Amino acid sequence: MGLFVSFEGIEGCGKTTQIHLAADSLVKRGIPCLRTEEPGGTTLGRKLRETLLNRGPFILYPETELLLFTAARAQHVREVILPALEEGKVVLCDRFADATLVYQGYARGLDIEVISFLDSFVTNSLKPNMTLLFDLPVEVGLNRARERIARLNLASREDRFEEEDLAFHKKIREGYLLLAHQEKDRFRVIDAAGSINDLQNTVRFHIDKLVNRE
Amino acid sequence: MGLFVSFEGIEGCGKTTQIHLAADSLVKRGIPCLRTEEPGGTTLGRKLRETLLNRGPFILYPETELLLFTAARAQHVREVILPALEEGKVVLCDRFADATLVYQGYARGLDIEVISFLDSFVTNSLKPNMTLLFDLPVEVGLNRARERIARLNLASREDRFEEEDLAFHKKIREGYLLLAHQEKDRFRVIDAAGSINDLQNTVRFHIDKLVNRE
Repeated sequence: MGLFVSFEGIEGCGKTTQIHLAADSLVKRGIPCLRTEEPGGTTLGRKLRETLLNRGPFILYPETELLLFTAARAQHVREVILPALEEGKVVLCDRFADATLVYQGYARGLDIEVISFLDSFVTNSLKPNMTLLFDLPVEVGLNRARERIARLNLASREDRFEEEDLAFHKKIREGYLLLAHQEKDRFRVIDAAGSINDLQNTVRFHIDKLVNRE
Repeated sequence: MGLFVSFEGIEGCGKTTQIHLAADSLVKRGIPCLRTEEPGGTTLGRKLRETLLNRGPFILYPETELLLFTAARAQHVREVILPALEEGKVVLCDRFADATLVYQGYARGLDIEVISFLDSFVTNSLKPNMTLLFDLPVEVGLNRARERIARLNLASREDRFEEEDLAFHKKIREGYLLLAHQEKDRFRVIDAAGSINDLQNTVRFHIDKLVNRE
């Protein structure tokens, strides 16, 4: 079996840049790896992603949102993650089940027990061997996300989650920190305020330690 | 509150014809009603329906299928069914939660308790006041479904469920009959081998009895 590493954090925390750099680093050193993401890691997931992130012509209820994210995960685990782990790869995944607990549970207020029950069903109780949590103040993250939108000339392209208010994003950060506190063995909390290079070194340190331990 | 009536049965049992006739009959008599269906009763549901019924370019895992059907239901209940019931309408629904128990549970073999748990979450424990089960031998139903496909010149347009083998459809029939046996007060089992007119009279009898009882 390979190793399963998830990358989590608030909007603008830099995890997507870091997961690309981490995958490049593994590939360069000949370590078989797969970089993937939720909810978009499968053909089905990319279809659902449009519905989940775009402001649609209809209200998407929190319960529907939860079930669509978990449907994407059920497919992703079976079609992509488990086969790669069985081939012995290091799987780097941009968001996984913790994101659902935090976004749909702590922030949207859906029952945490329902979400946990659902997640153990869809993942077949698969858990990441390690979760890297990129932590930084919400204001800093949102500014970064907005600068990125401006830089890419994507004015008014904020998605359904980015457009939520500050209080929502603060709940996300708190939810992640709470999970990290509850599962100290699995989580590595990384101060994401540093430079891209500093972060890259920290990420590489943690991944190498995990890979060499096995 | 209005009244909620679901129509269930195997492929080719005639329920879709009957639900249209039943709605027409209520409308003609000035009884406010809404005819709807699963999974296609909302904009989201129609999008998901394509994925659920078409043979896609990827395998759809049973767990994913279950979650997509329940996501469509979560949206349908909140966007369409509950508001109509609050307006006092008679809601006639082509398939509801029983279909998930029977198709994904009894036939696909997913855990019945998981499905029941999920369904009470997505429906907020809403149950039909009455469920009309159109029962007939599987061979008769499938022949009817195939004749319809031929008549409409829809050669090779069988969907992912219609193309399942006889044993699958027999499990569906048995599953429905088992549910009807377990919930005798809610179910009316209708012999669907009769003519369209005979069936229409039976359906109207049951609906009128329910409407007049309230």
